[in-house]
This record gives sequence, C-alpha cells and structure tokens, in this order.
Amino acid sequence: MVLKTRVTELLKIEHPIIQGGMHHVGYATLAAAVSNAGGLGTVTALTQRTPELLRDEIRACKALLKPGKPFAVNFTLLPSLAPPDYGAYAQVIVDEGVPVVETAGRNPGKWIAFFKKHGVTVVHKCVAIKHALTAQRLGADCISMDGFECAGHPGEDDVGNLVLLAKARTALTIPYVASGGVGTGEQLAACLALGADGVNMGTRFMATKEAPVHDGIKTALVKADERSTTLVMKSVGNTERVYKNDVARRVQEIERENPGKIEAIRHLVSGENYRKSFQESGDPDSSVWSCGVVMGLIDDVPTCEELILRMVADAERVITKRLPSMVGGRSGGLWSMVAGRSRL
Amino acid sequence: MVLKTRVTELLKIEHPIIQGGMHHVGYATLAAAVSNAGGLGTVTALTQRTPELLRDEIRACKALLKPGKPFAVNFTLLPSLAPPDYGAYAQVIVDEGVPVVETAGRNPGKWIAFFKKHGVTVVHKCVAIKHALTAQRLGADCISMDGFECAGHPGEDDVGNLVLLAKARTALTIPYVASGGVGTGEQLAACLALGADGVNMGTRFMATKEAPVHDGIKTALVKADERSTTLVMKSVGNTERVYKNDVARRVQEIERENPGKIEAIRHLVSGENYRKSFQESGDPDSSVWSCGVVMGLIDDVPTCEELILRMVADAERVITKRLPSMVGGRSGGLWSMVAGRSRL
Repeated sequence: MVLKTRVTELLKIEHPIIQGGMHHVGYATLAAAVSNAGGLGTVTALTQRTPELLRDEIRACKALLKPGKPFAVNFTLLPSLAPPDYGAYAQVIVDEGVPVVETAGRNPGKWIAFFKKHGVTVVHKCVAIKHALTAQRLGADCISMDGFECAGHPGEDDVGNLVLLAKARTALTIPYVASGGVGTGEQLAACLALGADGVNMGTRFMATKEAPVHDGIKTALVKADERSTTLVMKSVGNTERVYKNDVARRVQEIERENPGKIEAIRHLVSGENYRKSFQESGDPDSSVWSCGVVMGLIDDVPTCEELILRMVADAERVITKRLPSMVGGRSGGLWSMVAGRSRL
Repeated sequence: MVLKTRVTELLKIEHPIIQGGMHHVGYATLAAAVSNAGGLGTVTALTQRTPELLRDEIRACKALLKPGKPFAVNFTLLPSLAPPDYGAYAQVIVDEGVPVVETAGRNPGKWIAFFKKHGVTVVHKCVAIKHALTAQRLGADCISMDGFECAGHPGEDDVGNLVLLAKARTALTIPYVASGGVGTGEQLAACLALGADGVNMGTRFMATKEAPVHDGIKTALVKADERSTTLVMKSVGNTERVYKNDVARRVQEIERENPGKIEAIRHLVSGENYRKSFQESGDPDSSVWSCGVVMGLIDDVPTCEELILRMVADAERVITKRLPSMVGGRSGGLWSMVAGRSRL
C-alpha cells in the first residue's frame, strides 16, 4: 500500500515520511535505511567536522542505497560567531548529486538559490508561518513545518502542530510536511487531514534498530512519556527541547539566576556532551540532548521499514475505515444507507 | 450531512462539536444557540453568583432550546480557600434535569458519582492522561482532553493535542473529545483521525454572533494570530493561557520578581477584571483574559450554526475527498485503479 501526495511526487519517494536532520544521529546508515524503506533519509551535514568528511558520509550512504532511492542532506545555518565553511559543505552536496536538501535556520535565501540553481530539491525547515512564507518566496519547493512539540529548536512562539499545520494550509501554496510530535500512523493521517502532504520525524527514528545511537538512549526513549521533555535556553532566545534530566534542570536553574548568559551554561549544553551520550556512553542522564514530545508515543525499537510500513498501514486504516464509518446523513455515504435514516 | 461518532450517540447530538465551559461567556444564549445548531451548548455554573441564579440561567436556556435538544452545564472545581457551595450548585443541575455535565478540576470523584447517580451524563475535562484514566475509573462517560493549546488552564505538562490525543487513544476505553486549539473542519477531521470522537471548543465560540461578549473582544479574536496568547501564573503552579497584552506582560514581570506569590498578581488576574472586558468595556487590553492558540485560525464572526455546519462540511470534504485521493497501491482504492499502476 502507498499514500500518494504532493510530497511523494516531489521527492520521488514511496511513502510521505521523511527522517529529518539530527546532529550525531543523521549518519549514512540511518539515512539509507529510511530511504531503502521507501521514505526519505537524511544525512546531517554539520555532524561531519569537515566538508570532505561529509563527502565520505554521502558516498557511504549512496553505497548502502538500493537502486533509484533518493536521499537528503540536512544543511542547517547555525547562529555562530565562527560559522563553518557553509560554501564548501554546499559545494560537496551539489558535487555529489544529492537530490534533496533540507535547509534550516535563519536567512536561507542565498543557499536556497544556490541549491535550486544546481537542480537540488529544497525542503526548508522552519518554526513559524512568517518564515515559511519567506522560504516559499525564496524558492523553496517544500516546507517542513516545525511545531512546538519538536526536538531541538521549536522557536519562541510555542505554537503546537494542531494549529500550526492548520494555519500553514491557509498560508502556503507549496506543499509542507508536519515536523514535531509525529510517530504514529494515526498522526500521519491527522497531519494529512490538516493539510500537510507528509511528515518529518526525528526522535521517532532515533528509536529504530538502524539508528546509529547507543542502546541506552533508545531504551530511554521507550521508557519516557510525553512529559519527559523540557525546554532550556529560553532565556537566550534559542529555546531547545531536550530530555528532562538533572543536567537540563541545572541549566534551567542557572538560566533563572543568570538569564540570557550563554557563557554560564555553555559547558552544559555543548554538542560534544551529547555526542558522547549518543555515541559512547549511552547514558541519557549525563548530557543535555534533544528529543521531542513524541517520545510519549514510542514503545518499541523497530526497523525503519517496520516503522514506516506500520505507520502507512495505520494511516490507511484510519482513512479507509475509521473516518468513512463516521460519515453519513444527507450527503450520502454507506452509513446513511445502513443506519442513518432516522437522523435525516 | 452529519458525522456520527460515539460522542454524538452518547450525548444525543447531531454534530460532534461541544461548546465548553467559559467564565463570563457560558450563558443561556450561547449554550442554546450551539445546541439548537446541533452541537452541545454549555452553561457555566460558577459564572452564576448563586445556585438560584444558575437555576434561572438553566431555565432561560431551556426556554430558548428547540424541542429535544440537549445541553450541558459546566461544573468546575476551583482551587479555593473559600469554595462555593458546590453541593447546592450540583443539586440545581440535577433538579433541573440537565442531561449532560462537564466536570473539571481536581478530585472530581464525589461529583462524578453524584451526577451519575442522578442519571446525568458526565464529560470530565482534564489536561493529562493520568487524570483522564482516573476519571474513567471514577465513572465518567467521556473525557474532554485539554491540550497545551487551550485557553485557561492547560496544566503544567505543556503537551499539545497532536501528541495528547494520540496518546489518549491508547490509554482510554471511553470516548474523548479534543479540547484546545480547534476551530476548523480540517482540525475536526484530524482529531477524529487521532482517535477522538469529537471536539470541544471555547475560544472559537467566543467569536460567534450569539456569544454574549462585547464586540471589542470578538474583534480582537479575529485580528489576533496564533502568536497572540501567552502563559501567566506558571510560577504559582496554576498556568493560564491568556491574551498577550500589556497587563499579561506585567503579570509575567511580577512573577519573575516574586515567583509563586499569588498575592502580588491577584489584583491583575481577578475574574472581575475580565468580566468587565467581556461584558462592559469590550477592551481587550485592560484585563488578563483567557483565550486559546486557535485564535490564529479565527477570521470571522459567524453564527453558531454557520460555524458548526461549515466545520462539519469541511471535515466531511477532508474525509470523503482529500484523504481517499491519497490512498492507492496494493491495498486497492480508486487511486490504484486510475493512476497507481506504475508504483506497484
């Protein structure tokens, strides 16, 4: 079975499910597993310390892909005093013939233009309708609309996807996918109902067999519930949704005492800490690491293919069975024929 | 057309749309308009200063109702040092033969039992899965599941309805409705996809012709967007979502300086202030008043009937047209016949 949407057409994928960029998770093995399962896998560019290492990772991904399967690279513009050599990373992406780029971050105009010029399909990830409209104007092919539920940076507006996706439908003409909070087929169906043409998942894909993170982290994702995330760095205007542990609470305490002082918390929120949790220790309590509210819906560690096929089957069951069974009355439908006369 | 769900059956209503309890808004006129339009209208008990005034309001509602239309009374257990005479209010509800009660607040067990004993259908409104499970065990007939998007008190967990409703599906056996963030037919369809059997709306019903609030407030709801709400009283553990204006910002400032001191903000958050805004001045900037993130989706002030019929028509269009058009491939469906062969 398949779900055919504007996004499956645009990205030339079988199922409208994208694995979004994730630092220290978005390696070739996961991206290839998702793409081979009919979704769109994503290698995270800046997890690679140099453009040449990104080239190696892209080639590793290509070597793992079944024939004809597309994949993506995430290209995130970070606020930074010493920015990475974005131009060199972008050139590698183009040189290697990557079919899809997921851009993210502020002022993506120059990069959207660059990728478009080289024939790359651009999905821009953003947290607010205003930014989505800008990206559409700048030439993005698709928006990944990030709700308040998402792991990492949900922006400062606190608007959940039930409203954000419904609003995007009225604002955008290009297709968009739901990002943040999604991990089940019922949610996939709901997002399609809201106007999205697919979903983008990060945290849910961390709890898969192929995700290249330590089992300790996957176990934490399964054990946790929907109340197990919290927000840090709100005081510095760069809010991040992370696992609710003692290190995160310590960051919040420091922020209450020293609001806005990034120097006071930098040692606790460094990416190197969570790289160690993900790649070495597997200890979910020793660093501040990003995860989404969807962890309340994660109960197992399937393969990427099992997860994607289960979601599509569940979405299809909702679309072809549950929802039609509710429709009846004057406008027709099976229910009106079998049971609805008395209500007319 | 109708949407037939477990909730329309349970509440004996035509459309799965409930108008939830709202202080200084939930009067007879609005409740009757919603019920007459085929939804379930709700009179708010504690907006009436005495049990006898509630009796008058219930009778006023009954006088406005078309024959055979049910309605509800909201019965909220407030944290209070000097609680109202709940027993007397509950007795009036039972005496007047109110068919449905919407309970809300902590420790509802005694009251759920009381209403059930007298044959009243009980919808319990709560913000967390844990509380929903308790209410189910205590005998509630239905849950109104309040997400982070909701006006008033979203609880302290910050879980939006995209995740909360999906989780409720796996946790509850009794039906539930989505409360918070909902105002469109696409969202109604999405909530049904997530497992809910209907929706409960407050803010969206404030912006209707029949809502007994000043036009100035309705205009504010139309003008605002999804970023126009904010949270106050987080520091006192009784978070409230309100309109983002200077008074709300002042409350937040005081809370930052005096966290947890309700005395320091009481004069700004009193119900009497917003009663004046709603009922007298119509000034949206002179008080702290509750409203939900859904205000970003409010563009007009229709009648309750126009709103409900539009939502049901839009939901039905999503269910019968948009979603089925996406289904194809091996499992069948029209799409596979007309366009899907090449993907098999």
